[in-house]
Amino acid sequence: MKFTVQRDVFHQAVSSTQRATATRVIQPILSNILIESLDSNRLQLSATDLDFGIETWVQGQIIEPGKTTLSAKKLAEIVAKLPSGSEILFEIDSESQVARIECGASSFDIRTLPPDEFPVIKPLDQENYIELELKALIRAVNQTAFAAASYETNNVLGGVYFKLTAESLEMAATDGSRLARCQEKVTTENVNEEIAAIIPVKALQEFVKLVGPSAKSDDRVRLAIQEGQISFRTSDVYVVSRLLDGQYPQYQQLIPNDNSITAFANKMSLMSSLERTSVMANERTNVVKLSFENGNLSLAANTPEIGDSKDTIEATFHGAEPLSIAFNYKFLLDALRVIESDDVRMETNGALAPTLFKDKENNNFLCLVMPVQVK
Amino acid sequence: MKFTVQRDVFHQAVSSTQRATATRVIQPILSNILIESLDSNRLQLSATDLDFGIETWVQGQIIEPGKTTLSAKKLAEIVAKLPSGSEILFEIDSESQVARIECGASSFDIRTLPPDEFPVIKPLDQENYIELELKALIRAVNQTAFAAASYETNNVLGGVYFKLTAESLEMAATDGSRLARCQEKVTTENVNEEIAAIIPVKALQEFVKLVGPSAKSDDRVRLAIQEGQISFRTSDVYVVSRLLDGQYPQYQQLIPNDNSITAFANKMSLMSSLERTSVMANERTNVVKLSFENGNLSLAANTPEIGDSKDTIEATFHGAEPLSIAFNYKFLLDALRVIESDDVRMETNGALAPTLFKDKENNNFLCLVMPVQVK
Repeated sequence: MKFTVQRDVFHQAVSSTQRATATRVIQPILSNILIESLDSNRLQLSATDLDFGIETWVQGQIIEPGKTTLSAKKLAEIVAKLPSGSEILFEIDSESQVARIECGASSFDIRTLPPDEFPVIKPLDQENYIELELKALIRAVNQTAFAAASYETNNVLGGVYFKLTAESLEMAATDGSRLARCQEKVTTENVNEEIAAIIPVKALQEFVKLVGPSAKSDDRVRLAIQEGQISFRTSDVYVVSRLLDGQYPQYQQLIPNDNSITAFANKMSLMSSLERTSVMANERTNVVKLSFENGNLSLAANTPEIGDSKDTIEATFHGAEPLSIAFNYKFLLDALRVIESDDVRMETNGALAPTLFKDKENNNFLCLVMPVQVK
Repeated sequence: MKFTVQRDVFHQAVSSTQRATATRVIQPILSNILIESLDSNRLQLSATDLDFGIETWVQGQIIEPGKTTLSAKKLAEIVAKLPSGSEILFEIDSESQVARIECGASSFDIRTLPPDEFPVIKPLDQENYIELELKALIRAVNQTAFAAASYETNNVLGGVYFKLTAESLEMAATDGSRLARCQEKVTTENVNEEIAAIIPVKALQEFVKLVGPSAKSDDRVRLAIQEGQISFRTSDVYVVSRLLDGQYPQYQQLIPNDNSITAFANKMSLMSSLERTSVMANERTNVVKLSFENGNLSLAANTPEIGDSKDTIEATFHGAEPLSIAFNYKFLLDALRVIESDDVRMETNGALAPTLFKDKENNNFLCLVMPVQVK
């Protein structure tokens, strides 16, 4: 195998692909990147930790076709240190299976592992794919992924619930203390029945990191779900992830429809106020108390032995009597960060009832947070 | 005690002073900042971990004079989260000894500790100070501190040797594998005899961090050495450090005067080449081999089981026969970083001899690095 590539595009492709390599290596090949020539001017780079896989493509000049695998970490380090704008020559010695990487006066010999030991990343089923707007998927991931349980990699709570019909996408995540749900109108292709899956949160976040920065408003993404796996294909990248098995909680039943109390506040003011007040919040419980009265929202926190904090912002409040309610302030900040309107709406039935945080007027997104009981 | 301060200048002063607080707290007061009013419009902030102390000053309006101490960490967090451009009111309740911090609609109550428990930071002896250019001191610290032993806090090798005469400053540091020495012409005041001390490297680095960014070319620094301590005073800050006790190595004897081999290379080319080649250097020994021949310098590294690297740059070489010499590449990069000329000069007597790295033409700075024996 022998080819040349431009350092900058190759650097980008290696950095992206590397994200799927295994961090704790049981099989050494899982820390490698598979490089294979597709035709006379295109290479494919692949990596997988068996749960999650990435394929990217890069232009190059293929002098002698072939495939090989080499350490993603070493390859990334080498390419990062080669000068921007330069051309890189790769040549794999068929006898020794050593890859020689040449660039200007630099050369590197790096051990390879046989490409036939590299696990196959299942290609997208060209017959059974479905399609929707990429931007809608990215937005739904951003508005839900934060609420998934980060420590639960094999439990359904470590996933994001995904439900697609011909005209709507719904995604939801919960870690038991809070729930985020996003509903969006979409224009799909090939969606003939409702499709549901539980997708590991890490896979969705990696996908958004890869495609988010360059996503254009009319880009579309192709999905396929088969044999416990989901794949996403855009023009730049192909991502595969296993799905999580099990029954996702019936979260719709948890969302209160009739809330007797509503309040509105400016989102940025509330976020700054939470951040200031939280300085004195207990570092273990993160509790901040919100008190609504007379057009004002007061926030308060305290840690015995250290001190107290208090802050007041303007807020509109509709309720029969004043309300004092306490939350883990980190959950509120997570919800506020993804609310898109200038003002935020809060809805609840009382100090111990599940409380909703939403866009001021739009019901597409909601985050339910359970309050904390305080004396 | 009661005063107002501008948030931005106070934030800066708290951040600077906080650097001297104890990180592992045995006495809680050592994690506090002492705030005291000096006159009707000036406050002094102090912190010390007993080995090292910082005092800074900040303008404010003193409504009621006094002093108090409060948690540097909490104070820094609070001030960081208050809006830029705002005014802060401090009031210490003389009964409860709680400090109330008010800013806009925010208020914080924070426990204080009695100021008379705060250790005294010895003031500069106004009779016995010496004075020199601040920039010269900063430069000498930057050119030597990296070579001190970072793990040795009570050994002389964890310090920088400081020697001042009426007309010259010399500083040197060594960790046993390398030595950095800097000599500068200075204009001093009150230096009537040679002054020598071993200053902990952390104190010098903190001092340079505090004063380096704003140091102007004609700024001067006042020093005093008394009772095992050294103090530095600029217009913005006062820093005190204990000195290290003991005999500093006779490093002048280690520096070879007659070197039969000299070589020159472009500093940036050599640094980039070392960084590229080091990708394949053994992660434990960091060895990179340099081979000089025919106007070229070749660099090479290898780790069995992973691979090899090779790079070539232009170099001028004067020696009776070709030279191959190996170093811990990190030591070379540290030395090259502080060399100020475009080209670097290397001088040695052979592959196992102490090797000097210097400015191309200037002998004020040198870094001696011991080579590594390789097969």
